[in-house]
Amino acid sequence: CCARPRIVDVLWLGNLHVGLFPAPSLFLHQIAKEVAKLLEMKAQLGGDEGKHKFVLKTPKGTRDYSPKQMAIRERVFNAIITCFKRHGAEVIDTPVFELKETLTGKYGEDSKLIYDLKDQGGELLSLRYDLTVPFARYLAMNKITNIKRYHIAKVYRRDNPAMTRGRYREFYQCDFDIAGQFDPMIPDAECLKIVHEILSDLQLGDFLIKVNDRRILDGMFAVCGVPDSKFRTICSSVDKLDKMPWEEVRSEMVGEKGLSPEAADHIGEYVQLHGGLDLIEQLLQDPKLSQNKLAKEGLGDMKLLFEYLTLFGITGKISFDLSLARGLDYYTGVIFEAVLLQPENDHVEEPVSVGSVAGGGRYDGLVGMFDPKGRKVPCVGVSIGIERIFSILEQRVEASEEKIRTTETQVLVASAQKKLLEERLKLISELWNAGIKAEVLYKKNPKLLNQLQYCEDTGIPLVAIVGEQELKDGVVKLRVVATREEVNVRRESLVEEIRMRTSRP
Amino acid sequence: CCARPRIVDVLWLGNLHVGLFPAPSLFLHQIAKEVAKLLEMKAQLGGDEGKHKFVLKTPKGTRDYSPKQMAIRERVFNAIITCFKRHGAEVIDTPVFELKETLTGKYGEDSKLIYDLKDQGGELLSLRYDLTVPFARYLAMNKITNIKRYHIAKVYRRDNPAMTRGRYREFYQCDFDIAGQFDPMIPDAECLKIVHEILSDLQLGDFLIKVNDRRILDGMFAVCGVPDSKFRTICSSVDKLDKMPWEEVRSEMVGEKGLSPEAADHIGEYVQLHGGLDLIEQLLQDPKLSQNKLAKEGLGDMKLLFEYLTLFGITGKISFDLSLARGLDYYTGVIFEAVLLQPENDHVEEPVSVGSVAGGGRYDGLVGMFDPKGRKVPCVGVSIGIERIFSILEQRVEASEEKIRTTETQVLVASAQKKLLEERLKLISELWNAGIKAEVLYKKNPKLLNQLQYCEDTGIPLVAIVGEQELKDGVVKLRVVATREEVNVRRESLVEEIRMRTSRP
Repeated sequence: CCARPRIVDVLWLGNLHVGLFPAPSLFLHQIAKEVAKLLEMKAQLGGDEGKHKFVLKTPKGTRDYSPKQMAIRERVFNAIITCFKRHGAEVIDTPVFELKETLTGKYGEDSKLIYDLKDQGGELLSLRYDLTVPFARYLAMNKITNIKRYHIAKVYRRDNPAMTRGRYREFYQCDFDIAGQFDPMIPDAECLKIVHEILSDLQLGDFLIKVNDRRILDGMFAVCGVPDSKFRTICSSVDKLDKMPWEEVRSEMVGEKGLSPEAADHIGEYVQLHGGLDLIEQLLQDPKLSQNKLAKEGLGDMKLLFEYLTLFGITGKISFDLSLARGLDYYTGVIFEAVLLQPENDHVEEPVSVGSVAGGGRYDGLVGMFDPKGRKVPCVGVSIGIERIFSILEQRVEASEEKIRTTETQVLVASAQKKLLEERLKLISELWNAGIKAEVLYKKNPKLLNQLQYCEDTGIPLVAIVGEQELKDGVVKLRVVATREEVNVRRESLVEEIRMRTSRP
Repeated sequence: CCARPRIVDVLWLGNLHVGLFPAPSLFLHQIAKEVAKLLEMKAQLGGDEGKHKFVLKTPKGTRDYSPKQMAIRERVFNAIITCFKRHGAEVIDTPVFELKETLTGKYGEDSKLIYDLKDQGGELLSLRYDLTVPFARYLAMNKITNIKRYHIAKVYRRDNPAMTRGRYREFYQCDFDIAGQFDPMIPDAECLKIVHEILSDLQLGDFLIKVNDRRILDGMFAVCGVPDSKFRTICSSVDKLDKMPWEEVRSEMVGEKGLSPEAADHIGEYVQLHGGLDLIEQLLQDPKLSQNKLAKEGLGDMKLLFEYLTLFGITGKISFDLSLARGLDYYTGVIFEAVLLQPENDHVEEPVSVGSVAGGGRYDGLVGMFDPKGRKVPCVGVSIGIERIFSILEQRVEASEEKIRTTETQVLVASAQKKLLEERLKLISELWNAGIKAEVLYKKNPKLLNQLQYCEDTGIPLVAIVGEQELKDGVVKLRVVATREEVNVRRESLVEEIRMRTSRP
């Protein structure tokens, strides 16, 4: 009965206990080989279809950027990079994938969203899920205890995409982090100042930066009677308050997570609180919270933070909000999240949050998880979520009918007569060598009208026209596309003339 | 005997014929599930080790970029982007991974180097191997028949890394391509002009751009008696001539690939030829080649190309070289490759190539492979290999002891006395809001000496010192780090004074 394998054997393999076999390393090697063959077979069969049909698309949750979109993207990047540099940040880069185990145990419930690479022999790799864990790995690996850096790169999450709202599986993060042992809350305050500067610069409308502290949350859970073992999972529930009403979050806590109704109601009272220095003072007097060491520490630091934010003049857009939790496991102190508020002219009674565009916090334990001796490097940082910002600006450009140039070409080298390709190539070569941004149509004998139309279409402001007579006279006819004005310019002055006419005022 | 699976069953699965099973789609689904479980098991066991040991490293063949390396990298990128923009290129971006089948059948023997993603349900994905195939996919998908674009991004190859020589598994490509139906060789000539401009700008020493044409190669193979079916594989052998002597390549052709010794010797005569217009004229008279339609077409276009390159004044560094073949399958016309030559002061008799830094060619069929109706979009492009260039510049910086700044900070806000943190924060906030790049030490009471040392270490040129007396007088003491000169500046003139003193002459 063993002459050929049956499907039951294949299924059974999933429950295989490894201890059964005397030579596990050989066995694992064989598994890897067989697995590769099976996957290859599956690929050749075209998945569940059984019939090949080629689909012309980008992978689910990803997109291309067209030249026009890139022009908008560059504007946003420039604003962000300018701000990061204004605050004295260096820049680093890390690989797009990390060893799988570098990412293991850092993201809590979100770990299931990590993209793994296929085991093709060699190391097991995963695409980076954020820039924070690679940064901590970089610090530990290079024994760096002190750095202020930014990093702008794509990260990958196998989430359910919602592309119209700017949620993708491949998306940019723009991270700024300060690592090092410093006096409390000074770097933390600078991170909030940076978010404030960037969101103001980009003119995205009104925004609010919510601030909380993991220590205040944990202290709150303790005084509300949440068992220690449930802190993280209850924290995950609180994190959903920006998308769900309290009643649903409460029933998740009590129903799914087995919290007592009394504890849940007690949490419910706290998480509706938000305010500024007053609220901090009030909670410092709270009979229960003030008795909890963690909460007291967190509230003391929160007070200090608000003092620094007052010096920076930005408390108007900062809200201390006890419902802010943030999903990731690695935060240890201050956490924050910036949301855009719907403009009032949308006829909404109260400003409503349209989504998070930046977030961050303090993670003092992450680098120590990578250090062989567990040495800690305290860190605080912020991540700007560029995709949602980009979606908003893109919609705004579409609505405004603003014409965006996608090239910087200063001049088109053209001719009105035939057989002048060689003269056009000679002239454009001179211009390129002088640093002028110039184009030429790739036709032997293009019509002047087509050449002028090309300038209209692409926004090229000048045309340098060569003709028999101009060549004899040692001049080039320079035409201003917008005004149709034409002047003869001596060939040796052409570069200077183009520079003058295309320099920004 | 079937009560438990034995290793022989597992191995047997590799040779499984799919036709045996009545419900292949269900079966495939089960395979996928079991495969995932097995791989998970293997991962948990830590590969062949059987014992977990965490390694703090980046994946094989990849690296981090430190702030200093990033500063050098930015210089190189700037030179390249400036050149691409000078030639009127737009910019696009595409996802880091593509559907696996988008890459299938495009890279010939190199396909085995593609990184696949793990099948986690959903689409089968691979990391991009170059930027050319994603570009062609982009054109076909968006029905674009006419574009001049650049794209700078990382690509991935599971090659044997040689990191000291700048060969990585994750590396940047900087691509410039011209797509569209144009008159012959004008865009092709511009691509070579671009390579010439970039390599000249970067001052990497002497270089040579080798040029050939796939049609000339194919014509040559035909007249040498290579059977049609062996064109691509013999072309691969010729491609190795930059790394192997002719004798070895010949024995590969005859021994491994079954070519007749006569045909191989005949090829051997051709592939040692290199030169300029003279050689093209000579081959146009070659009794055999001139009878071959493909070769004649290729030689005619090569002549035209050299005429355009003469107009651009760059033929001095261009060599028509019959040994240049290029590995990739998709080229259809002109191909080229730029190599750096070892400088003469290295006491080498003859300049020796130290490796390819740019390459490209014409690929008129690639877009058609993606178009549902097979519509062709002729393309020609060049790819600059940044990593080798970057390695060279990095070594040069190390050797020169040139000090590279990794930040752009203009001024450090400092204090000489204690208890002035609040005043420092107030002042730096004013400076940031005015667009000044400023830093402050994150200490409540830093020593002045430490603050000055920080400026020395990081190259910050100015220190703005607040003190009790200065605050009373409404001034800030501005210190020039290099000269130790100190002046009192009125607070309202500080921004202007910093700008003036830190603007480049």
